[in-house]
Amino acid sequence: MTSAIGILGGGQLGRMLTLEAKRMGYRVVVLEPLTNSPAGQIADEQIVAAYADLRFIGELGARTDVVTYEFENIPLAAIEALEADRRLVRPSGGVLRITQERLLEKQFVRECGIATVDYAAVGTHGDLGDAIAEISLPGVLKTTMGGYDGKGQWLIRGAADADAAFGAAKGRPLIYEAFSPFDKELSIICARNAAGEVVTYPVAENEHDGGVLATTIVPARIAPAIADEVRRAAETIAAGLDIVGAFAIEFFLAGEHLLVNEIAPRVHNTGHYSLDAATISQYEMHVRAICDLPLVPPRMLVPAVVMVNILGGGSGDQLGGVNELLRDPDVSLHMYGKAHAALRRKMGHFTVLGSDADDALRKAELGRRKLHWIDNRAVSRA
Amino acid sequence: MTSAIGILGGGQLGRMLTLEAKRMGYRVVVLEPLTNSPAGQIADEQIVAAYADLRFIGELGARTDVVTYEFENIPLAAIEALEADRRLVRPSGGVLRITQERLLEKQFVRECGIATVDYAAVGTHGDLGDAIAEISLPGVLKTTMGGYDGKGQWLIRGAADADAAFGAAKGRPLIYEAFSPFDKELSIICARNAAGEVVTYPVAENEHDGGVLATTIVPARIAPAIADEVRRAAETIAAGLDIVGAFAIEFFLAGEHLLVNEIAPRVHNTGHYSLDAATISQYEMHVRAICDLPLVPPRMLVPAVVMVNILGGGSGDQLGGVNELLRDPDVSLHMYGKAHAALRRKMGHFTVLGSDADDALRKAELGRRKLHWIDNRAVSRA
Repeated sequence: MTSAIGILGGGQLGRMLTLEAKRMGYRVVVLEPLTNSPAGQIADEQIVAAYADLRFIGELGARTDVVTYEFENIPLAAIEALEADRRLVRPSGGVLRITQERLLEKQFVRECGIATVDYAAVGTHGDLGDAIAEISLPGVLKTTMGGYDGKGQWLIRGAADADAAFGAAKGRPLIYEAFSPFDKELSIICARNAAGEVVTYPVAENEHDGGVLATTIVPARIAPAIADEVRRAAETIAAGLDIVGAFAIEFFLAGEHLLVNEIAPRVHNTGHYSLDAATISQYEMHVRAICDLPLVPPRMLVPAVVMVNILGGGSGDQLGGVNELLRDPDVSLHMYGKAHAALRRKMGHFTVLGSDADDALRKAELGRRKLHWIDNRAVSRA
Repeated sequence: MTSAIGILGGGQLGRMLTLEAKRMGYRVVVLEPLTNSPAGQIADEQIVAAYADLRFIGELGARTDVVTYEFENIPLAAIEALEADRRLVRPSGGVLRITQERLLEKQFVRECGIATVDYAAVGTHGDLGDAIAEISLPGVLKTTMGGYDGKGQWLIRGAADADAAFGAAKGRPLIYEAFSPFDKELSIICARNAAGEVVTYPVAENEHDGGVLATTIVPARIAPAIADEVRRAAETIAAGLDIVGAFAIEFFLAGEHLLVNEIAPRVHNTGHYSLDAATISQYEMHVRAICDLPLVPPRMLVPAVVMVNILGGGSGDQLGGVNELLRDPDVSLHMYGKAHAALRRKMGHFTVLGSDADDALRKAELGRRKLHWIDNRAVSRA
């Protein structure tokens, strides 16, 4: 029986995963290079080490029954070393290899019979010109590996953008993707266990701001047929990857045309709402999946929920307006224990329950306006 | 602004309080004599010290912005030392003084105009005889301070019981209480902040087994007028105590006659359900109260919920049947991270959501039957 879970990565996703794993009675050991990390604050133990340090990675495996990860930019070599050492890693190195490389991921999705945006591999400046000629403008140039929240991504509107982006990429392998207008960004959380049980959450509708997720609305305001198509795609991808764990898929919806944007082989920002609004959170579902517990369909506890990310303002580290926010009885606040509210850093989130999406969105917008950052160097610590 | 919370006591109530405080972004420091305590596993720090060790109690006060406690058998001197040191303790020493002494507590409740069972102070064996003569048999002899889960309590049916109980009490101050037949045991969670805001949870109906809480059903299956009377009593007691924090009151209901059994000045076993079935848990409400955040009325997310305590069997430390239990999509499991499942020790609990009380009770009983303890010394640790 699994009694200890190892987590690579100590950010907010690892923190919420740890909170749920502890609630269920597991020991949790986090490996993360930064001390006092959001997840490490709550875990039984934090191993402070680089993800590439195979000695400490091995230590994490030795101290736990199953190892998982909270972000996909873990060096594949670390996962492969654990697996060579016969440690259980979930999702497996095979899943990570595909999902951490944009070209492999898109190829895999297409092999599943599911549409993606048009794309081309870019090695040289000449490749980029060819890709633009073939796929047309505008497009997005991305590093094939790494990058998150819009980092390592450049919008290309013309030749000048292409030159600047190619230079900024500094020789890293690249992918050029079509940037088509879309009506909505959608996502779904799905989980699968080793017994092959698969469950899906309701489809979420997401609004980004400057490449960073701002708001998630659940359930998405889409036709039932589209929701069914999203769910079927998730089930197909789950089985195709042979994944064990919770994961997310992001989609673009243009008219009735659905395209996979990317797969994240881990719990996801767009699934935070499930802590407050579903019978089983994505974090518990991930624990169930990796610990060989049964997966049963989650149910929404309310008709609609909106999640709002609380991003750093770069102007102070103390969040003001919390008292006012918490006056709304439908609000639940989650803060990640990060000391410094750097500009656009994910510091926390709040969810708002509603009788429908409009009701929740209206209250979410009121809540968002109440929060502001205060420079606490200028505030007496009474 | 409060940023660090100190908790005296490291048991399961402190654990769930810590989980909710961490979710909200607070630092948490627990003081508890036993290492690797349920709460200490999750808190940022645990100070391992006796509750009577004023040096470490002072250290807890110095490291945090507000100190609270998860059980009422903390030495009053520890709280008074913190208050003398101008530390904020919530609930205050004044509240603890009354609620940790059964005679003072009953006198206070009566001064609030609320009925209690008949009782008499017992110092000598002669006092006990007088009390039995006045109040009649059967009755319960209890130590005025300390004791929980039926410890320090003796049912008195006749002279032989009285002699044995008086001897077992070993000279501790005692109270003799009438033991009248009752139809239901009820309880309510209430919270009050320093601004005087008071909120109450739905009335809960409790079933004990051998002095230990077995099952809580929410909402209680009682007439609306009784629920109103319970809520009004809680509001009166909250104001009368001038309490800051969440607390519980236990009642006996005989016919339409309501009697206060006891007040617990802390989060309570009968409020566990609120983590899964209410918009704001009793633990969050306590954090809000002691950290000067607004109190807003909690709402139930489902029509009914049942909480079942998972007690140790004394026959093994590994819980079997978890896979089967978690097949029910309405079940949520909470385990406390205790290594040894001593007989009748509170090891965890599960809640079951239901369309009504009968539905939840039926599924709870099915769930309870699935769980059993396994002697893991006899199981290979694969």
